[in-house]
Amino acid sequence: MPKPIKILRTRNELQHWRAGLEATRPTVGFVPTMGALHRGHAELLRRIRPRCDVSVLSIFVNPTQFGPSEDLAKYPRTFERDLELACAQGVDVLFAPAPEEMYSSAHSTFVEETQVSRPLCGQFRPGHFRGVTTVVLKLFNLVRPKLALFGMKDAQQFFVLHQMNRDLDLRVSVEAIPTVREPDGLALSSRNAYLSADHRELAPRFYKTLAETSTRLRAGAPLSATLEAGRQALEACGFTVQYLDCVELPTFNSPNVVLPGCPYLLAAAVYLGATRLIDNVIVNPAALTAIGYSAPSFEPAESS
Amino acid sequence: MPKPIKILRTRNELQHWRAGLEATRPTVGFVPTMGALHRGHAELLRRIRPRCDVSVLSIFVNPTQFGPSEDLAKYPRTFERDLELACAQGVDVLFAPAPEEMYSSAHSTFVEETQVSRPLCGQFRPGHFRGVTTVVLKLFNLVRPKLALFGMKDAQQFFVLHQMNRDLDLRVSVEAIPTVREPDGLALSSRNAYLSADHRELAPRFYKTLAETSTRLRAGAPLSATLEAGRQALEACGFTVQYLDCVELPTFNSPNVVLPGCPYLLAAAVYLGATRLIDNVIVNPAALTAIGYSAPSFEPAESS
Repeated sequence: MPKPIKILRTRNELQHWRAGLEATRPTVGFVPTMGALHRGHAELLRRIRPRCDVSVLSIFVNPTQFGPSEDLAKYPRTFERDLELACAQGVDVLFAPAPEEMYSSAHSTFVEETQVSRPLCGQFRPGHFRGVTTVVLKLFNLVRPKLALFGMKDAQQFFVLHQMNRDLDLRVSVEAIPTVREPDGLALSSRNAYLSADHRELAPRFYKTLAETSTRLRAGAPLSATLEAGRQALEACGFTVQYLDCVELPTFNSPNVVLPGCPYLLAAAVYLGATRLIDNVIVNPAALTAIGYSAPSFEPAESS
Repeated sequence: MPKPIKILRTRNELQHWRAGLEATRPTVGFVPTMGALHRGHAELLRRIRPRCDVSVLSIFVNPTQFGPSEDLAKYPRTFERDLELACAQGVDVLFAPAPEEMYSSAHSTFVEETQVSRPLCGQFRPGHFRGVTTVVLKLFNLVRPKLALFGMKDAQQFFVLHQMNRDLDLRVSVEAIPTVREPDGLALSSRNAYLSADHRELAPRFYKTLAETSTRLRAGAPLSATLEAGRQALEACGFTVQYLDCVELPTFNSPNVVLPGCPYLLAAAVYLGATRLIDNVIVNPAALTAIGYSAPSFEPAESS
């Protein structure tokens, strides 16, 4: 019979449980989430299990990473289903604190990454990555994991956290797994539930366009014209494009040209109605493993 | 024969040493400094020793806490004497990294406290406390202490770090010890070495004026007039006053009045020639112990 999952609601409970592990010093694996779990999260949990003695899942809709005009209040909360999925994946501990448990009314300390977090989503969601780094640092300090897994759907988030981990000497293995997709290519996201039927039908064109744009860039097409063509293709079929851009990895600097054998992140945010979707492709992913990023994170995208 | 001190220069050496302690899980005590050690630092080391199994002293002149016009290059560096003092105090490990060891050229992540760090020195040293919180978080992550001691001479620094520790769930006991003073009342500081003979003679008036101002405030004198009188008294005897101000503890909000039995920090920064001195008095220190600050940190100042 599988071990029952342990549900912890407070930092004190978590710290007490964590301190109790010290004697045996197990490898703790950690998957932080905002809940509304889907197969992408299941894949994170499936992959972390064989790599640790004890697995911790957190579910916390983090208020500090939502802007004032964003969807904090209506972000999907599906705790009972999330719990089922966590149990099915053999999670040992579920940490699900209330907002006031994580942030006292006097909270005033934030972690800010100032380079990787600036372009792409950072331009359009001021304060978002500051909220992400702050809550993930807090969670790392509470859970004290050896390994933490993130999804490549949120590629910029992963690179920001990777940078934070290195800069602040956190000594966690911060790794990413490839984006899990629907059969038609749409990246799984808790926000896909917001899409109308028509928009859901259109949505796979998003990734398809990114993959085509990546293929053209790898083949030597000029950078800015190719990005502009991608943007126009998306707008033409009904997306409102917030950005479609390409940055050097891991610096997130803007390149003038795409060089063969160098790694880049091609990323975009689009709206279908009021629903904001993001997706990305790593260009030349093999080049990332050479600079210390783990290989499974960056499987090449299939181009159509 | 006392154990010889272990000198570590790199983060890898420190982490390797720290990991080797895990089996016995000793209590690690930590005193972070910028070197140029004096009797104030000796007192920190003397006090931490009976409270831990292993004591760590760091010496690191942290570039990120100096402004572009500040004294980073000429900050006193007296490693041989520091080492003697550390040995005399029975320090187990001295961590003394080079700047490039602590900050890679791609460093881009900073910790920012946004409330306690704003008034007093924060107004005049933009980025200073960001540098302090960032380096102390890094050092905490490397050393993983149970207890860290700071001097109350840098009272705002202590309260900023206390706030960071709580907000980021660091679980370190962040405590302060009373300011160590010369017989004439001057707070010990590495920067006192910069003072001319004339300025050194004048310097004790600084603390004397703060203590008198505190006594008046406790006796019910009106706040802003009393602060203004203190400022004028300092200017009249030759100090250039950068600020002389009073904030509520632990919020660092500006009070309208000083209430009996409530804790405040009365703090000032002054120049004697090019040398900047800071000092402070806690008003009603007993009230701080009631809200979770350890008692020895806040021994009442003697008023003349």
